[in-house]
Amino acid sequence: MKVKPFCYLCASKQIFEIANLLYKDDQSQFDFILKVNKKLLEIFKPNLVPTQIGTNLHRYIKLISKNEDPFRNLKNISNEISKKFYNILKLQLEALPSFEEKLKKALFYSVIGNTIDFAAYSTNLDVDKFLKKDLNQTLKIDNRDKFILDLKQAKTIIYFLDNAGEIFFDKLLIELLSEVCKVYAVVKKNPILNDATYEDARLASLDKLKNVVLLDNGGDIIGVDFKYLPKKTKRAFEEADFVISKGMGNYESLSEYTFSKPVYFLLKAKCQPVAQELNVNKEDLVCYRYYIK
Amino acid sequence: MKVKPFCYLCASKQIFEIANLLYKDDQSQFDFILKVNKKLLEIFKPNLVPTQIGTNLHRYIKLISKNEDPFRNLKNISNEISKKFYNILKLQLEALPSFEEKLKKALFYSVIGNTIDFAAYSTNLDVDKFLKKDLNQTLKIDNRDKFILDLKQAKTIIYFLDNAGEIFFDKLLIELLSEVCKVYAVVKKNPILNDATYEDARLASLDKLKNVVLLDNGGDIIGVDFKYLPKKTKRAFEEADFVISKGMGNYESLSEYTFSKPVYFLLKAKCQPVAQELNVNKEDLVCYRYYIK
Repeated sequence: MKVKPFCYLCASKQIFEIANLLYKDDQSQFDFILKVNKKLLEIFKPNLVPTQIGTNLHRYIKLISKNEDPFRNLKNISNEISKKFYNILKLQLEALPSFEEKLKKALFYSVIGNTIDFAAYSTNLDVDKFLKKDLNQTLKIDNRDKFILDLKQAKTIIYFLDNAGEIFFDKLLIELLSEVCKVYAVVKKNPILNDATYEDARLASLDKLKNVVLLDNGGDIIGVDFKYLPKKTKRAFEEADFVISKGMGNYESLSEYTFSKPVYFLLKAKCQPVAQELNVNKEDLVCYRYYIK
Repeated sequence: MKVKPFCYLCASKQIFEIANLLYKDDQSQFDFILKVNKKLLEIFKPNLVPTQIGTNLHRYIKLISKNEDPFRNLKNISNEISKKFYNILKLQLEALPSFEEKLKKALFYSVIGNTIDFAAYSTNLDVDKFLKKDLNQTLKIDNRDKFILDLKQAKTIIYFLDNAGEIFFDKLLIELLSEVCKVYAVVKKNPILNDATYEDARLASLDKLKNVVLLDNGGDIIGVDFKYLPKKTKRAFEEADFVISKGMGNYESLSEYTFSKPVYFLLKAKCQPVAQELNVNKEDLVCYRYYIK
């Protein structure tokens, strides 16, 4: 999908919040806000995908703040909180009688894990409160039955992960998937925003799972850009019978392509532009099978 | 008060909302957003008062949109809603036994009228709902007893009005004040934001009140800038025994000066920077006697 007018304001909001995250005094915040908004004005073009602008902007933020990982602390906090949720939800999954029921519930958990997003929401996001609220919701687009059918035919899945913290919710799903097929789990090669990197994947012990192979997207890139995908990840993509794409960044970028295999977009529509594109309401939960040959 | 880092984001939010108000298609909104954000970047300086930047920005918006009064429709709507409140609250005031009690209540009503602000809040603000909520609040800074003492000594008051709609709440107070002294009521000479002009004052029949003289601030200027105040209004200011200043714009600008008479700031602290400056919480209601000789 291409940027919408609202994306400009959302970027400006992220700039303000990161200024607050990185600097305590007004003068430093002013300097940062003016510099980064100048950059935003230069790079914002209506024909771009939001992730392209976001990648460019957050790289610039890393550069001028001389901070390779401005969200590291927030990522640690969300990993901690999500780990607790993982332990509770894992028990609830185990109590379910059939693999299919477990799978459907794990798909739902994976979607609500997408609530953990300090960019679309706020760096002050109350993760714990939000997650508890989402647990009582239902999926607005629910293609889980199709997912089960696709899985029956599948030997390999490629799973594009999204945020730190969220990956503990993905782990619940990946553990089930890895019982029946091979899973390539793709993180960001280098830190960008609060996206999960190898460090987060290892914290969630995804590297310890049988039948799971950790790969990366080739850099500090929000979403998926096939131009920069490493050969190994490209081969995994080709091998996969279908794709799981977590979150808005992966949706924004992958929905620009057409594929010869289904892509499941698992996300919470946290902003109006993405909600509109998916024809749902803001805050709706989505498990959407996308397949345009 | 001087701008804070948050003011940049607030301005960017106003730009987005006005783009939505003025244009239906994405391309026009993009053009507007990019142009006006470029202007914002040029004029935003940390040593300025928010109203100076706001005035400059909203004049530019009028210029490039070729619309002398972009908020006219919203101002009409808020006048309509406020008129209904006026009729109800007027009866409640009349039921009170003493002038002092009426006055205290009218001061409170004038403060909650300041809720009507499409800049600090949103152009989608549900005025009716917000006002009803505020009616159950109390003043966080409550200098009404001092106001009553000052009024006993006063022959003349100058009253800087703020927003359209809100002036119906001011009318409740002005009617009482005009029973005991002369009131100069100051509107904006030309449209800027949703600020009240002569047109709104006449809609509220402020021009029909005995002992009330309508004046203006000299142009399409947010708040009060003494450099541009017409001679008549300057003379009224000098004649006045004390000053009533409604809303955040008048507060931001008047708090930059020192005066030889008290200024009563009647407002709702609708943003963090103003709340912080007044040492209250965001959304708090304030009737504050400011007097630095």
